[in-house]
Amino acid sequence: MATPAPLLSRRDLAFQLYDWLDVAALTRRARFAEHSRETFDDALDLSERIAARHFAPHNKRNDQEEPRFDGEQVHTHEEVAEALSVFAGSGLLAAAMDEEFGGMGLPHTVTTACFAFFQAANVGTAAYPFLTLGNARLLCAHGSPEQIDTFVRPMLDGRFFGTMCLSEPQAGSSLADVATRAEPRADGTYRLFGTKMWISGGDHELAENIVHLVLARVPGGPPGVKGLSLFIVPKYLVAPDGTLGERNDVVPAGLNHKMGYRGTTNTLLNFGEGVRHRPGGQAGAVGHLVGEEHRGLAYMFHMMNGARIGVGAGAMALGYTGYLKSLAYARERPQGRPVAATGKDAAAPQVPIAEHADVRRMLLAQKSYVEGALGLLLYCARLVDEQHSADTAEERAHAGLLLDVLTPIAKSWPSQWCLEANSLAIQVHGGYGYTREYDVEQHYRDNRLNPIHEGTHGIQGLDLLGRKVVRDGGAGLRALGEAVEETLRRAEAAGGEAARLAAALRAAWERVTAVTARLWAGGDPAVALANSSVYLEAVGHVVVAWIWLGQFLAAGREGAPGGDGGEGEAFLRGKRQAARYFFRFELPRTGPQFDLLASLDTLVLETEPDWL
Amino acid sequence: MATPAPLLSRRDLAFQLYDWLDVAALTRRARFAEHSRETFDDALDLSERIAARHFAPHNKRNDQEEPRFDGEQVHTHEEVAEALSVFAGSGLLAAAMDEEFGGMGLPHTVTTACFAFFQAANVGTAAYPFLTLGNARLLCAHGSPEQIDTFVRPMLDGRFFGTMCLSEPQAGSSLADVATRAEPRADGTYRLFGTKMWISGGDHELAENIVHLVLARVPGGPPGVKGLSLFIVPKYLVAPDGTLGERNDVVPAGLNHKMGYRGTTNTLLNFGEGVRHRPGGQAGAVGHLVGEEHRGLAYMFHMMNGARIGVGAGAMALGYTGYLKSLAYARERPQGRPVAATGKDAAAPQVPIAEHADVRRMLLAQKSYVEGALGLLLYCARLVDEQHSADTAEERAHAGLLLDVLTPIAKSWPSQWCLEANSLAIQVHGGYGYTREYDVEQHYRDNRLNPIHEGTHGIQGLDLLGRKVVRDGGAGLRALGEAVEETLRRAEAAGGEAARLAAALRAAWERVTAVTARLWAGGDPAVALANSSVYLEAVGHVVVAWIWLGQFLAAGREGAPGGDGGEGEAFLRGKRQAARYFFRFELPRTGPQFDLLASLDTLVLETEPDWL
Repeated sequence: MATPAPLLSRRDLAFQLYDWLDVAALTRRARFAEHSRETFDDALDLSERIAARHFAPHNKRNDQEEPRFDGEQVHTHEEVAEALSVFAGSGLLAAAMDEEFGGMGLPHTVTTACFAFFQAANVGTAAYPFLTLGNARLLCAHGSPEQIDTFVRPMLDGRFFGTMCLSEPQAGSSLADVATRAEPRADGTYRLFGTKMWISGGDHELAENIVHLVLARVPGGPPGVKGLSLFIVPKYLVAPDGTLGERNDVVPAGLNHKMGYRGTTNTLLNFGEGVRHRPGGQAGAVGHLVGEEHRGLAYMFHMMNGARIGVGAGAMALGYTGYLKSLAYARERPQGRPVAATGKDAAAPQVPIAEHADVRRMLLAQKSYVEGALGLLLYCARLVDEQHSADTAEERAHAGLLLDVLTPIAKSWPSQWCLEANSLAIQVHGGYGYTREYDVEQHYRDNRLNPIHEGTHGIQGLDLLGRKVVRDGGAGLRALGEAVEETLRRAEAAGGEAARLAAALRAAWERVTAVTARLWAGGDPAVALANSSVYLEAVGHVVVAWIWLGQFLAAGREGAPGGDGGEGEAFLRGKRQAARYFFRFELPRTGPQFDLLASLDTLVLETEPDWL
Repeated sequence: MATPAPLLSRRDLAFQLYDWLDVAALTRRARFAEHSRETFDDALDLSERIAARHFAPHNKRNDQEEPRFDGEQVHTHEEVAEALSVFAGSGLLAAAMDEEFGGMGLPHTVTTACFAFFQAANVGTAAYPFLTLGNARLLCAHGSPEQIDTFVRPMLDGRFFGTMCLSEPQAGSSLADVATRAEPRADGTYRLFGTKMWISGGDHELAENIVHLVLARVPGGPPGVKGLSLFIVPKYLVAPDGTLGERNDVVPAGLNHKMGYRGTTNTLLNFGEGVRHRPGGQAGAVGHLVGEEHRGLAYMFHMMNGARIGVGAGAMALGYTGYLKSLAYARERPQGRPVAATGKDAAAPQVPIAEHADVRRMLLAQKSYVEGALGLLLYCARLVDEQHSADTAEERAHAGLLLDVLTPIAKSWPSQWCLEANSLAIQVHGGYGYTREYDVEQHYRDNRLNPIHEGTHGIQGLDLLGRKVVRDGGAGLRALGEAVEETLRRAEAAGGEAARLAAALRAAWERVTAVTARLWAGGDPAVALANSSVYLEAVGHVVVAWIWLGQFLAAGREGAPGGDGGEGEAFLRGKRQAARYFFRFELPRTGPQFDLLASLDTLVLETEPDWL
């Protein structure tokens, strides 16, 4: 075994948060005036410590001892509950919430970095509080004051956990086909009947109660997604004074057994199955309407957008920690000798594999993926902070537009490329990486979920090309173009290598805008969207090249912290080298992708299923 | 669950074997004169039937019930032994061996197709006989008549199994560092002392005996790979009359627990541990020298080259069967509605997901990878048959050259792209694909081994660029160029679309030769080889484009079998469509790769490990 690697690089986090994104500047705004770089660092310290001490040690055990369902209850091993108890006690769950909800009011940018430690340490256990947080945020935005008091406060205290219940066995990507029924009752509550699939945290004994947020259909509403309403369905009914009542009619029908991500229990849930749990009661699961009827999907998207960025963050954290593990391994594992003009001398000692060109390529590739993904996610988190704290309404709206267009990329790009990073981490380890003695094979299996859940890769492509870059007359893409332009101008002004990288990015960005216009010029959505996944991947690479150009500038800035000729200087050299790698090895991949898109290729449309 | 899919497509096998590669023509040669298309089809029928009945049913069980080591013996569940017993009784093991060894004398091209059924059905169980076959072939080529009688015949009868023992804990990719010691004894035998790692089939109770082929170092020999000799080390000593004697001093020290491929036991083996198994005997594991001292690696490469192509074949089979499963699923799973200019009508019924453009893209991509890989592997197998049966020595030498240069590609390309196919098969299944209820996640985990064993991806890149395309003055690359040229000429003569595809392939091939020359023009191997993995991947894609052009021509040929307007016509349309997919979506990937290579980029060489 190699020297234990850190979960994430604190040096890189400091660079990205302070040198590149200048998060410290947020403390000059009223919303964050209580904070300072010290409070940010304290939160990072706390997160790293709890993640390393209480989450990382049982990551393998989560994989080996899946949650069990005995027909009545779902059981998890005891270390999960212990870790979650420590997490709840830390106050981190509410860290990014306003103080009115008991929060610390930390910037989202900082909590994204904090939470990444938990995802890197143990993505399975970390999913419980992060799902709960998404649930709580939705209710803070759209729930009534009573609902917030009854359900949100116990969630932020760590007593209740939350879920989101969208999919059904026959309705995954197609939410228009959600069939769960919600019948209104005279007392203002509803009774739900139906089956929900893929419910993470859907049942367990880790909390006093579980707050399900459930999409269902009130009879008489319009078909499709416009007829969906959102309900709170607690596992145990809650009296107005907060005391827990009887078991609600929502029961697990079984667990899904996954390739990875096994620490998070994932259930098929029956609502309104009836007699078993409420022999004397009324049939149906008691639900409380959130907001208004038929607006459920819009509310749920409040949670979904956050969840999508959370998926990207989880993918990034798995990729990042796998990178650091493969780096530690590569620096210590002796094997072979360098290629030399004079041939290899078998009598010479072996060298660490980090000395081999191909291993360095695999390390640089991982670095460019995981640090690029971290940058993308912190940038998105910074936009959330701008939405909440920028001085003018225009700035806030601009941040919202940018966040909107970047969300499918922030979800899908890390899910694709940080999975690839995990594959490279295995490859660096050789045969050892394929064994369960090391960690990286589990990271790879865990990460394979990320291109699937919270909207598949294909759904993200349709969202980006079919919705985000075209709606409001293309305002989202223009906003992104302005942000890219700002970086390009700085790089051009810096001259030299920065200007050369800028020229490549400018050309790529021009292709983004030209291809987007061309795809939609014909007016046939089937043709425009035929290769939307290719579009998603190409634009994603251009966006990450832009993130890297920003980091390249920050790393090269004279007098940047760490430019001390020692370890800090090596870090900045590595940063610039990874940026170069991305521009030389990665950005050029988009050329053939844009060529294909510009040709309006309809091959996939013309392929009949019976030809396959 | 979808309708069960076949393991492989018989329609495609018939097309590739007979319409494209014209394997039936081999029966006009003396070596295969006993055979006919009927005997080939009989062997395919037999393989498909045994694979489906005796191998596929316990594929999941192999994954769930790994081999166990009780400190003395390695145990496997009973279905493995049953399947291997049926396989041994079928005569398929020796099918491709000459009749003098009890074989059927089938062409290698046909047995490669036969064996693919077993790899598709259950790669873990199939590994035992295929390792044994590689071992037997090596001994037939380099062993003494006594060694063949004593060890090979029982292997071909299914009574003994074989392994190859190269790696050690400190020597994986670097065989120069193999340290196992072989001390000569007066009776002509040797005593081995050392530890071998990653030994597939290294211990079990599935056979009467295990024949280990072991690389070891006779004291006094040169350092590095030139000092390696090859030994037969049986688990049980064998008397000249064939009766089994006492246990040899080779004992498992533990099992490796892998992410996938769990059906094949993989062990750490101690040779010459001494006292435990032979209390009264001499210390050391009794070994019999194969051929001459210090020529072990050359002999082992006889097995390694076959094993490398076998790895490619296993990767292909896993990709292929996963493709068929995702195709069956996509044709039946209803979800969503097609994109239409008028918007989606939520009241309309859902359609099978194969109707969605992005799902068809994922199916076409898989088809292009797996049928392209099958073509590559059958083409290589056809070269083996040419080596053994072509009329002239020149033809035989030409086939050998081509096989030599194609081997690293036949190993690595399917390992990379059929793994990607398995990832797409998961993606087509959505959340279900990530569960262990379906097969595709296991295929993906099983397949992830293939870029690692029998020479990693990086090692294959060094082999191709550092050895295969340069030695003998570049004869291998020229031979490949001639084969490509022959296909190009036929495509150009056909005109129309075939000629347009040929133009793209000609341009790509010119880049292969230009880039190869440029990389070596500087004379610095470190610079030439800095991006050898990129070279491997780019050349691999060009080679598979060539394979696809050949199949495109065969599919379009007037009067081709199956061109009947019905199911056969749909098959040929699909074949042409997959070829188009490869040329539009895949071949263009190589442009930026060749650009990078042509620039002699040294970024990875200039990156210091401490910058990472």
